[in-house]
Amino acid sequence: MDERAALTLLENELEAAGDDAAVVDGLVVTTDMLHERTDFPPGTTRYTAGWRAVGASLSDVAAMGARATAAVAVYAAPSFDRDELLAFVRGASDVCELVGAEYVGGDLDGHEEFTVTTTALGRTDDPIRRSGARPGDLVCVTGTLGRSAAALELFERASDADSSTEAEQLRERANDYFRFEPRVDAGLALAPHATAGMDSSDGLARSLHQLGEASDCGFAIDAADVPVDDGLAELADEDGALERATTFGEDFELIATLPANALADVRAATDVPISPIGRVVDRDEGITIDGEELPDRGFTHG
Amino acid sequence: MDERAALTLLENELEAAGDDAAVVDGLVVTTDMLHERTDFPPGTTRYTAGWRAVGASLSDVAAMGARATAAVAVYAAPSFDRDELLAFVRGASDVCELVGAEYVGGDLDGHEEFTVTTTALGRTDDPIRRSGARPGDLVCVTGTLGRSAAALELFERASDADSSTEAEQLRERANDYFRFEPRVDAGLALAPHATAGMDSSDGLARSLHQLGEASDCGFAIDAADVPVDDGLAELADEDGALERATTFGEDFELIATLPANALADVRAATDVPISPIGRVVDRDEGITIDGEELPDRGFTHG
Repeated sequence: MDERAALTLLENELEAAGDDAAVVDGLVVTTDMLHERTDFPPGTTRYTAGWRAVGASLSDVAAMGARATAAVAVYAAPSFDRDELLAFVRGASDVCELVGAEYVGGDLDGHEEFTVTTTALGRTDDPIRRSGARPGDLVCVTGTLGRSAAALELFERASDADSSTEAEQLRERANDYFRFEPRVDAGLALAPHATAGMDSSDGLARSLHQLGEASDCGFAIDAADVPVDDGLAELADEDGALERATTFGEDFELIATLPANALADVRAATDVPISPIGRVVDRDEGITIDGEELPDRGFTHG
Repeated sequence: MDERAALTLLENELEAAGDDAAVVDGLVVTTDMLHERTDFPPGTTRYTAGWRAVGASLSDVAAMGARATAAVAVYAAPSFDRDELLAFVRGASDVCELVGAEYVGGDLDGHEEFTVTTTALGRTDDPIRRSGARPGDLVCVTGTLGRSAAALELFERASDADSSTEAEQLRERANDYFRFEPRVDAGLALAPHATAGMDSSDGLARSLHQLGEASDCGFAIDAADVPVDDGLAELADEDGALERATTFGEDFELIATLPANALADVRAATDVPISPIGRVVDRDEGITIDGEELPDRGFTHG
């Protein structure tokens, strides 16, 4: 059984599963595990790792349209270096502070591969679910797509760099791209209006397929409206950038559907850019980009 | 830096760390990572693994004297077997149900070693801390000590068994011992009276050293009063059983200090046996069992 089949099995087993986070009596809880090999490319600082790992869970809270309250992490590594550990905690604390949550620690664990499990908590009385999108609704994304793809490209270029100075500069840019603002503020602005939503961590294409399945709908996306990040656009040709922005994932923006007449209110309620990228359509119209089928390809989290 | 030194570093860095769980605005949160190699001996069923992993986090909630509300887990494994996964979820759900909490799922992750991270949540307005024990207080433990030591012994005997029937029976008994009731009920009974407390997962000896450090006190323990589990007593000679009950750990009972005159009230409020095992003394009297120094030996969680 592959991971997606196993997840579906669990969704059927557990009532609270199936969204980006579980909600129990208004309390939002979500947990995630990240590994050095699959999630932290060589050159990722421990500060960035702490930020990104905790940020990924805060993004799930944001996707539910919830207030973020607290986060914890288990830091598992073969050995504990004082500076690395403190940098990780600072990254974790800083991303929490950015969204008004508190990083309250967690646990340490000896493990041969650097592995981090993060849990974030939030509160909402009216969560945004993956089901609920209605034909005619706008599909919107927050911020830009492709920052993580750009970071990966920069980490790779750093590995191939001619000088250590150049490598250092590339790694610093890569780390900047690799950290992100969890969209808690945008989620709160979307919450009163969104008919459905989730985060983009599996990539836009895969996320739309998941939303389509949960909401029993299709999507008609306009390629020109997809907000490709400038950093990625600089590093790739135009087609390549759109392709990666659409399928690469790992970006932690929000994808939400809402009535067209609610867009102005959402925008007024947050400083985060909200881009309409298309419309919700009937299920039998499928999921398309500029009229072409958008296949269910993307990042399956390992 | 070893794990204990690293934990101390984090305690100094993070205000909320240092107890069995963090408490933020009355919300209790605790997280833990367990591995096949160090925590689930061969013969541990996935049902038991789910129970035990989630139970360990619920025990941290219990140690804070809090109500348990919910738990999540990340299940990481090289592959996902339907029956194993469902058994894990059933174990996790059953231990939650036993203490009035809800198991709300979590995430799956591909990983070469079976690894589980659990997070449990609870609520309390008046948490039991590790600091606060006062000379003259009783030291009490819930239930019995040595169940996990007994389980390990049985798992080992099963590996050496002459017949597969015998091995099967030994493994079944081992799994029974390896599951435990998180002491949420006892924690709630202790909460109004306890001056300090924690769970016994690092073993009685190490836990007393941690309590002594946090509360700046010593302990005088009476060996005859330590409630050694009958299952362990059956498997080991008397001295060996006491030694293992004292230092083996992994038992998830509560160790709490309280004024002697509160014992009757605590006992009246819970069905869980509460055994006084000694007294809180001044720090300079040290930590002793029958007048002999009880060294800081036990299980360091890997």
